[in-house]
Amino acid sequence: MADRSLIFPADEYQQRTARLQRSMDQNGIDALLLTTAPDVFYVTGFLTRFWESPARPWYVVVPSHGEPIAVIPTIGADLIQRTWIKDIRTWQAPNPRESGVALLSDALRDVVSERGCIGVPMGLETQLRMPLADYFELEKTVTPRTLVDATACVQRVRERKSEAEIAKLRHICNVAGQAFDTVPSFAATGVGLDQVFAEFQIACLCAGADWISYVAGAAGQGGYGDVISPADARPLVAGDVLMLDTGAVCDGYFCDFDRNYAIGPPGDAAARAYDALWQATQEVLGTITPGQRACDAHQMLCDALVRQGAEPGGGRLGHGLGLSLTEWPSISAVDETELVEGMVLTLEPSAIIAPGKIMVHEEVVVLRSDKAELLSPRAPAQMPVILP
Amino acid sequence: MADRSLIFPADEYQQRTARLQRSMDQNGIDALLLTTAPDVFYVTGFLTRFWESPARPWYVVVPSHGEPIAVIPTIGADLIQRTWIKDIRTWQAPNPRESGVALLSDALRDVVSERGCIGVPMGLETQLRMPLADYFELEKTVTPRTLVDATACVQRVRERKSEAEIAKLRHICNVAGQAFDTVPSFAATGVGLDQVFAEFQIACLCAGADWISYVAGAAGQGGYGDVISPADARPLVAGDVLMLDTGAVCDGYFCDFDRNYAIGPPGDAAARAYDALWQATQEVLGTITPGQRACDAHQMLCDALVRQGAEPGGGRLGHGLGLSLTEWPSISAVDETELVEGMVLTLEPSAIIAPGKIMVHEEVVVLRSDKAELLSPRAPAQMPVILP
Repeated sequence: MADRSLIFPADEYQQRTARLQRSMDQNGIDALLLTTAPDVFYVTGFLTRFWESPARPWYVVVPSHGEPIAVIPTIGADLIQRTWIKDIRTWQAPNPRESGVALLSDALRDVVSERGCIGVPMGLETQLRMPLADYFELEKTVTPRTLVDATACVQRVRERKSEAEIAKLRHICNVAGQAFDTVPSFAATGVGLDQVFAEFQIACLCAGADWISYVAGAAGQGGYGDVISPADARPLVAGDVLMLDTGAVCDGYFCDFDRNYAIGPPGDAAARAYDALWQATQEVLGTITPGQRACDAHQMLCDALVRQGAEPGGGRLGHGLGLSLTEWPSISAVDETELVEGMVLTLEPSAIIAPGKIMVHEEVVVLRSDKAELLSPRAPAQMPVILP
Repeated sequence: MADRSLIFPADEYQQRTARLQRSMDQNGIDALLLTTAPDVFYVTGFLTRFWESPARPWYVVVPSHGEPIAVIPTIGADLIQRTWIKDIRTWQAPNPRESGVALLSDALRDVVSERGCIGVPMGLETQLRMPLADYFELEKTVTPRTLVDATACVQRVRERKSEAEIAKLRHICNVAGQAFDTVPSFAATGVGLDQVFAEFQIACLCAGADWISYVAGAAGQGGYGDVISPADARPLVAGDVLMLDTGAVCDGYFCDFDRNYAIGPPGDAAARAYDALWQATQEVLGTITPGQRACDAHQMLCDALVRQGAEPGGGRLGHGLGLSLTEWPSISAVDETELVEGMVLTLEPSAIIAPGKIMVHEEVVVLRSDKAELLSPRAPAQMPVILP
């Protein structure tokens, strides 16, 4: 049977590493220091929910030539040994007397000359997953080597998904699609939104998700307000629009799309908003293409919504997707990132129905050389109605 | 019905803030800058799974006097307005042209004099959840104010759980306990470990968990190897010991404990290891008390295991628990943190059965003034046997 700890054959990770190394060459970076679950998995295949514990940092050093080095707590040694990584250095963590920085510093000094540059993602949509005091200590111990921002160096590589990654993303989108299909079997008048959230997570697991890192949603008369609040126990009532949105995970890859349901026959405004969102998405599915910028896609979605008679919602109307619930770029008015072949994006137009009342529609696509290909099963053209 | 966005009455958060402010006074800190989901929830009651998206930073500033200030992306405005926080400053994020640092810097300069100190958790078991480049920019813009490590300032407060927190932790432990009780209904010879993981997550949701942030486990003949790998499809067979471990969440609070099951009658070595772990835990449940240090509890667990004829496993044998899957301190040989009343801890002794074969046992306790009180339903004294 497949060794789940590797997910892909070793050459997938080797190709990723080679692409990162080409990007490092172009950016004058002699080694990358990676600290987050998505970045570490991307290079190594090291996949574990243990990242949920903030107790321990995990490091991967990617030199500009040669193979990556893992500098990790002993508790991960067994798992990383099942990946393609051969240079593995461990310490017992957490330990107030031994942070692992000396070991990490040694690894970096092994592969970066004194005049060299160490790249660390520091920009928008990145985080440094290690104690800040350890970072300052590292900065001292690698001197005179410099630490520089490697956000673009990493993002320009990771944003072009391989066919193997696209297959994983399509799979988890289909899993969530199956779960969405079952919503009418448990969402009904009188059922609390918190119960709906629980049942929906169960449906995702039954359909084959490994785990559910994100579920959001909302329900309200003719539309809903904010879409990030936890579910309350308010029962669904006729006239509600119910929205569910999920970031379910299989083999480390996330889906992220939503579906709307009318509880009882929808009112005119809600039905019109749904139709406008569906049509606007349909239009942009046919026109979005590599070579445009993220802000162009935003404009296309806004224009299409206006043509459909809807008022576009604020904020971003989509984003990258892959090894975390959201990745760059943002489909927003201010993001000029070029759309490229292999990018997986959500198209997430929202429409303002009335003050404090919105509707959000979301699909997942991969950009092919000259068009977009859907990865999520397309939402129905009419809002599904759940009758009591 | 209860507003789930607040979880506790406002005075719970006000008391926490007052305790943080006393700790700040003692540590010479004029304002805290908090960036992580647990720290932000602790002060504000702002609870959302939206933290799963790395796209946006979220900031809370706690001044040494007066009320906290939230500096957050616009998308969180509705939710934070339902908490007790009144000073809310928002910007549209993510935005390559506007990081939010100017807004954050203004908030800090409003409450910290030029000679003042801004505390940021930088130490063991902390992370800075914001782009590192933004942190450097902030450092410049708040000059001459200094940024200092506030790890101890925050940890000494958060580690003493209130009765309201203890009630939440007891609740989620009971939820997981109910799920563990159902394991024999789905874990059987021939069922793959990945299927067992899925069913166990479903059981946690059915028992009332809001979501499942962590499930780990393992199965192997007479014991298992590492405990952080994803589940594979290998079917359970007679002679396996199956272990499941969960960090399920209710109202933002985590449980973290495991249970072991024998698939068919256990071998002698496995049964002896289970007994030793159970008895050693039982002994320490009776002797652990405030005033000891974390390393003392580690020694007590090791000594008790040896008395029971078992070889203690390496690494830490327990840890704090609360708003994340693991919190400080570590029950390890090197952590000298004083155990205090109100601490919630896992006792997690492990025994080495043979090379590469271990067993791990885990319970959750709260430290009362002179004893420990169990929060997890106690594991059965004999290993439960699942017959085909």
